[in-house]
Amino acid sequence: MRRVTVSVPARRYDVVVGAGVLAEVGGLLTGRRRAAVVSQPAVAAHYAGPVRDAIEGAGAATELFLMGEGEEAKVLATVEDLARGFAAWGLLRDDAVVALGGGVVGDTAGFAAACYYRGVDVVQVPTTLLAQVDSAVGGKTGVNLPEGKNLVGAFHHPLGVVADVETLASLPEREYRSGLGEVAKYALMDEEAAAGAAEILERETTRVLGRDPAVLTELVARCVAAKAAVVEADPGERTGRRALLNLGHTLAHALETAGGYDLFHGEAVAVGLVFAAELAGALERVEPATADRHREILTGLGLPVVVPGGALAAELLAVMARDKKARGGLTFVLPGSGGIERVDDPPSWAVERALRAVGVEG
Amino acid sequence: MRRVTVSVPARRYDVVVGAGVLAEVGGLLTGRRRAAVVSQPAVAAHYAGPVRDAIEGAGAATELFLMGEGEEAKVLATVEDLARGFAAWGLLRDDAVVALGGGVVGDTAGFAAACYYRGVDVVQVPTTLLAQVDSAVGGKTGVNLPEGKNLVGAFHHPLGVVADVETLASLPEREYRSGLGEVAKYALMDEEAAAGAAEILERETTRVLGRDPAVLTELVARCVAAKAAVVEADPGERTGRRALLNLGHTLAHALETAGGYDLFHGEAVAVGLVFAAELAGALERVEPATADRHREILTGLGLPVVVPGGALAAELLAVMARDKKARGGLTFVLPGSGGIERVDDPPSWAVERALRAVGVEG
Repeated sequence: MRRVTVSVPARRYDVVVGAGVLAEVGGLLTGRRRAAVVSQPAVAAHYAGPVRDAIEGAGAATELFLMGEGEEAKVLATVEDLARGFAAWGLLRDDAVVALGGGVVGDTAGFAAACYYRGVDVVQVPTTLLAQVDSAVGGKTGVNLPEGKNLVGAFHHPLGVVADVETLASLPEREYRSGLGEVAKYALMDEEAAAGAAEILERETTRVLGRDPAVLTELVARCVAAKAAVVEADPGERTGRRALLNLGHTLAHALETAGGYDLFHGEAVAVGLVFAAELAGALERVEPATADRHREILTGLGLPVVVPGGALAAELLAVMARDKKARGGLTFVLPGSGGIERVDDPPSWAVERALRAVGVEG
Repeated sequence: MRRVTVSVPARRYDVVVGAGVLAEVGGLLTGRRRAAVVSQPAVAAHYAGPVRDAIEGAGAATELFLMGEGEEAKVLATVEDLARGFAAWGLLRDDAVVALGGGVVGDTAGFAAACYYRGVDVVQVPTTLLAQVDSAVGGKTGVNLPEGKNLVGAFHHPLGVVADVETLASLPEREYRSGLGEVAKYALMDEEAAAGAAEILERETTRVLGRDPAVLTELVARCVAAKAAVVEADPGERTGRRALLNLGHTLAHALETAGGYDLFHGEAVAVGLVFAAELAGALERVEPATADRHREILTGLGLPVVVPGGALAAELLAVMARDKKARGGLTFVLPGSGGIERVDDPPSWAVERALRAVGVEG
């Protein structure tokens, strides 16, 4: 079991990572009267039992609140359903919410906790790789509007995070591998903070793909440490530091927004990471070999390094330009000798060259 | 014009109080790109023009977003409508929201601002007496659920508050007088912090009832100072200090929940203030004359000091007991020689005697 501490002004909390650690939720809720466990049917079928047992063993009553699957469930109507359920059950301000599931559950239940009684404590129990290394850590919660993702939400740092790597055993293969795309981002983003996570991906590829609990514990804990370092430097996303977590995401978002590429988020991030390394290479911020190393690691993990089926630069550039208009600049996060940095409006020849390197036709 | 500064960890902001001060909103938004003005049709007809002119004069674009009237409009569906409108208009994180109206607008638009992009700045422009002395100051925002009022919300301290007492001229008489009930609470709650507001109510009754702008400016500014002192001591409602703002509210909430008494909130608070003083008298926390002075001030303002039409103690005690069950104790906020304090589970003979004193039959 590994324990990574996240220290932000609002609170200091631990991310517990390990195999078979679900029962750690109990200790976080000792002395509480009630805990509302929010989950989805498929996840709850596996893990709601042991989580509720652990909480009840610590002396708190529990109730299970189920929500729907997918991004369509990550909406204000679900937050209202949850809050009404909490109220009908008698959840009060000193009670707690437990978010048991992937990013959709963590973001939605986390936001419900952030605004119910103007804020009750939440324990995040992420059960997907993406949620364990990324969304459950850092306090971002929220839901989608038809106008855009995560447009309504709150910063609400959890009381604690319990990441049981054994829950990853039940993920479908493609979802698991997609999560490795985000893992690779953290491993490659700041190799010092990630303390050798990139080497684990390079040297222990077979055990990573085989979901070996001991290797996953190390990998997840190191990626969480890399994320925690950024979150601690910018807890409320105000200084620009936290935006560096968008490494690989400018192209990934464009691919997801343009649609039609049939990519999971982590897969789009994988292509985006190679694109960012290629763009950084074109701008002579890093050695050309950097992109090759990225490609090697990602390919080894079964992740795409080019846009599948090809894509048109014009279309992706149009999507990025819409973003540019809304946000006031075409912004990339790129590696460099001094670490990752934001780069605004790079020359278009460099962007186009990097796009060609990930299979996008001019 | 008076200026009261509120200093909380999240920020330090000014409440500007005066006659014809609406244009002060402009100065608060200098350098902003856009400001979304949220209001209701009747309020907007009077004041949206000057507010938008002031903001546009400061260089920011504005758009008006109208919401419905009454508590039925203070719901998550309105927050969603507002957030979608903000997104469609292109409001971004560094832009701002202006809440122009009474408590319903301030609470709802304030919560929309609190969660849009996980928090954009809000300027509160309260146009009712209740909102000017109470709801616009202190950072509480939120909406109702069918299960209870204000069950979903956030602490979101404003960038600034602009309270123009001239906007009170258009309030219907009963709504204005009801607001004086909450004014009286602040004036009587902590006479030192309110710096003579009680004396204004006693000696300048005619000018208060005539809505004299100079007298109202003093009265509102002093009540805001009394509220600010409590908010600064407990910005996130965690230490119990802020709960003292519920002086007079245990009975008021019971009257409102039991229903059928046809009381405005400030009217119910007026009866609750007398009840609290009577209960404090029965418990020998204050001189018996205290309740008489409360009655004199409130009657002078045209506010009720007994439950109109009578009421049954059993019914009100049943409502308070439901609250007691949910919250773990029958709690009152009562005056005393050392200031107001929370008093838990006073003897029932004292509660019943105080109820009789406000016209509730045993």
